[in-house]
Amino acid sequence: MSKHLTKRAEDYSKWYNELIVKADLAENSAVRGCMVIKPYGFAIWEKMQAELDRMFKETGHQNAYFPLLVPKSLFEAEEKNAEGFAKECAVVTHYRLETDPDNEGKLRVDPEAKLQEELIIRPTSEAIIWNTYKGWIQSHRDLPLLINQWANVMRWEMRTRPFLRTAEFLWQEGHTAHATKEEALAEAKQMQEVYATFAEDFMAMPVIKGAKSESERFAGADETYTIEALMQDGKALQAGTSHFLGQNFAKAFDVKYTSKEGKLEHVWATSWGVSTRLIGGLIMTHSDDAGLVLPPKLAPIQVVIVPIYKGEDQLNAIFDKIRPILQELKSKGISVKFDDRDTMRPGAKFAEYELKGVPVRVAIGKRDLENGTAEVARRDTFEKQTVNQDDLITYIEDLLENIQNSLFTKAVSYREAHLTKVDTFEEFKDVIENKGGFVSAHWDGTEETEDKIKELTKATIRCIPNNAINEVGKCVFTGKESTKRVLFAKAY
Amino acid sequence: MSKHLTKRAEDYSKWYNELIVKADLAENSAVRGCMVIKPYGFAIWEKMQAELDRMFKETGHQNAYFPLLVPKSLFEAEEKNAEGFAKECAVVTHYRLETDPDNEGKLRVDPEAKLQEELIIRPTSEAIIWNTYKGWIQSHRDLPLLINQWANVMRWEMRTRPFLRTAEFLWQEGHTAHATKEEALAEAKQMQEVYATFAEDFMAMPVIKGAKSESERFAGADETYTIEALMQDGKALQAGTSHFLGQNFAKAFDVKYTSKEGKLEHVWATSWGVSTRLIGGLIMTHSDDAGLVLPPKLAPIQVVIVPIYKGEDQLNAIFDKIRPILQELKSKGISVKFDDRDTMRPGAKFAEYELKGVPVRVAIGKRDLENGTAEVARRDTFEKQTVNQDDLITYIEDLLENIQNSLFTKAVSYREAHLTKVDTFEEFKDVIENKGGFVSAHWDGTEETEDKIKELTKATIRCIPNNAINEVGKCVFTGKESTKRVLFAKAY
Repeated sequence: MSKHLTKRAEDYSKWYNELIVKADLAENSAVRGCMVIKPYGFAIWEKMQAELDRMFKETGHQNAYFPLLVPKSLFEAEEKNAEGFAKECAVVTHYRLETDPDNEGKLRVDPEAKLQEELIIRPTSEAIIWNTYKGWIQSHRDLPLLINQWANVMRWEMRTRPFLRTAEFLWQEGHTAHATKEEALAEAKQMQEVYATFAEDFMAMPVIKGAKSESERFAGADETYTIEALMQDGKALQAGTSHFLGQNFAKAFDVKYTSKEGKLEHVWATSWGVSTRLIGGLIMTHSDDAGLVLPPKLAPIQVVIVPIYKGEDQLNAIFDKIRPILQELKSKGISVKFDDRDTMRPGAKFAEYELKGVPVRVAIGKRDLENGTAEVARRDTFEKQTVNQDDLITYIEDLLENIQNSLFTKAVSYREAHLTKVDTFEEFKDVIENKGGFVSAHWDGTEETEDKIKELTKATIRCIPNNAINEVGKCVFTGKESTKRVLFAKAY
Repeated sequence: MSKHLTKRAEDYSKWYNELIVKADLAENSAVRGCMVIKPYGFAIWEKMQAELDRMFKETGHQNAYFPLLVPKSLFEAEEKNAEGFAKECAVVTHYRLETDPDNEGKLRVDPEAKLQEELIIRPTSEAIIWNTYKGWIQSHRDLPLLINQWANVMRWEMRTRPFLRTAEFLWQEGHTAHATKEEALAEAKQMQEVYATFAEDFMAMPVIKGAKSESERFAGADETYTIEALMQDGKALQAGTSHFLGQNFAKAFDVKYTSKEGKLEHVWATSWGVSTRLIGGLIMTHSDDAGLVLPPKLAPIQVVIVPIYKGEDQLNAIFDKIRPILQELKSKGISVKFDDRDTMRPGAKFAEYELKGVPVRVAIGKRDLENGTAEVARRDTFEKQTVNQDDLITYIEDLLENIQNSLFTKAVSYREAHLTKVDTFEEFKDVIENKGGFVSAHWDGTEETEDKIKELTKATIRCIPNNAINEVGKCVFTGKESTKRVLFAKAY
């Protein structure tokens, strides 16, 4: 494989696909639209999982596990949800293979092992979970029910891209049941907040919180709350969604509880999820033409130390100096790697860690040994600094924090520079086509207008921001009255 | 649901099934043979996962993720493996549903969305993984490749039982590639050791390490190493297996590397796995007629504190005493719950925590407040002790360790009392039928004898123990010469 990475300005999409392979994050598999997540990419997902899982538990949720397969009759019970996912379902119809009598040594589906009822590989688990909740919920004392699942799901998408849209993907899906509408709404909004906090504090990826327009809602939801991020190429990425499901699933699966007053009522529901798509967002928020740039809080390797030496003796002398530093960094919970491979030159190592986005690189050679110094380079800005070995630990700790903050600040600046208020459709088209980013515009609230704008510009309503100000205005397309600006963008 | 739990002596199998439901571990789902793992059961799995994952990483393995679905042509590439799993495969044949024209509001499989090649839901991932490794391995520098995956798999078993044998189950599967046969063998044995250590040190479940006879090997393996545990009803449980796969998969998928000497050679492979089946083993090793008994190291709640009070004032006084104790226990990493629910009497709470196997229960009432004491009960022996509040932390720490060790010791004693050497087939049948447990007997090494013994007694060879002593003897069935005793048992 060529070491050359396409430049972002040349072809952003090609850069993205190449980077994923070259940085050892993932690769395509033999199954259409499904990827293999390689150890380095999976280590990022593990870091994400650990933080999210902690945040879910801190907000009172417990993990559980529900079946992969959904009987068709359950799948179709909530009509809107079924309609939304029917066209992208992988369907299990048989449960056995047999030797193919017409083709020696080959197997074929055993026609006698046909299932009476087809099974759908979950594209999302509301159906199987709500069918289960029916048995778990009788009384107000069983509520709220706050459950999360880490799982794989399958959506047979026609156009796939690694991390961003794959047929199979890994995610978490929270499914909660509540006694009142207010509680369920509060839960859905709380999880939107949790996602926003995770995106900004750990991924260093600023997001805009808002609600989806009706046409962009999750199939079966009464309200979908979203966090929307902006990628370097000016396209938006829906990074996480939290749905208020009303009583739709409770009614479809007949899940009722006896209230304190002894009345039998349908429960209220939410569901919420983020997926391996976040890794796509992480890549397209920070990385550059030299490769991946990772925020320290999610980097599998936060610091790499590269000895520059000739011969065993120099290497040993360097290692003697470095050993206590390695130990202290590790004891502080910093993930550090000492790379003494003798099959590769330091320059090649530097390039590899740049490609893989390791936030801090420390190089130490003969001269450093004499001077009691080390050279510290940060991945995000390529700045280098000579540091006294005695100050190295503190310097690295500060630098990691500094990089984390500076990546976030930079991404916020980019997002602010690419959020444009427009008041005419000419401006709208011009910004979407030439500048990219979010366009803040008045909209008359109709699906018809939304569709027309999408048809003409490929821009969709990303969200009605939570913090939108009431403001009298006119729809940018029809001129009809509007009270709020919404955010449009082209999106992944 | 009735609170009564069937006694083990009455019907062990019924006791097991009831306990799983009553202790909130799992329940059957709407999908044949698939269970829902409830939060309490899943919390045990999470504890198991955390320890195993740490042990895998400490032995140099990394996690990755490979696709759920395996194209049929890859599935059948390694013939023995394919043959072994063909009869229990869930097969995806279509990728879309459509509205059923003959049945309003219902969906049906869209006959036009038939896949060109059927996809198998992984029963195990050798095929998809070795097809991927082909691209990852070129040189001896790429070896060893040490990868693990946490995943769900599907085996369409006809008879299923919660945790022990379910159509879908959760597991980890390690898949490694090595330059030499010796290295691969050492890896397979190392992972058997890791599993044994986990079973004994964390599950407090003694295991016998050994090799499987040829007929009991994993389909596609040259050697299967196993850890075998003994359940309370005298049946054995295969708790984990580690396979030396020889070059079978390397040849089937054409995975070669260039050696240091420049020669092109097929690599050597292992795979190894443990699953949610371990939870079944945990239950059947320690639990009793009052419910679950959990070893402290895997208990989701290690200590429960139940206040015994009348009125808010007494509760507050108790909580004032307990608060610092709760905090200190938590700071020591002990998982503790303070149960002040006012909807349930203390006696009912005690029964609930007994059923759920919480290792240590602390009760504190009015008299204790006056005396500065608390009553501490251990779940495994039901022994109670009055302890000074000042000594409570130390007492609990010691008690948890004590319970962990004592569960293991008790299980070892049971296993030792149920491992019987026999030299005649009469004795063999008598022990298998009336006493249960492992039978150590000479075997002539043929599959024919193995089959006959199984047919006559339902006992199978569980393993040829690693520590078997060379000993001249005669096969218990045929009288032919034998050099080693092997272990037989009825098994789950």
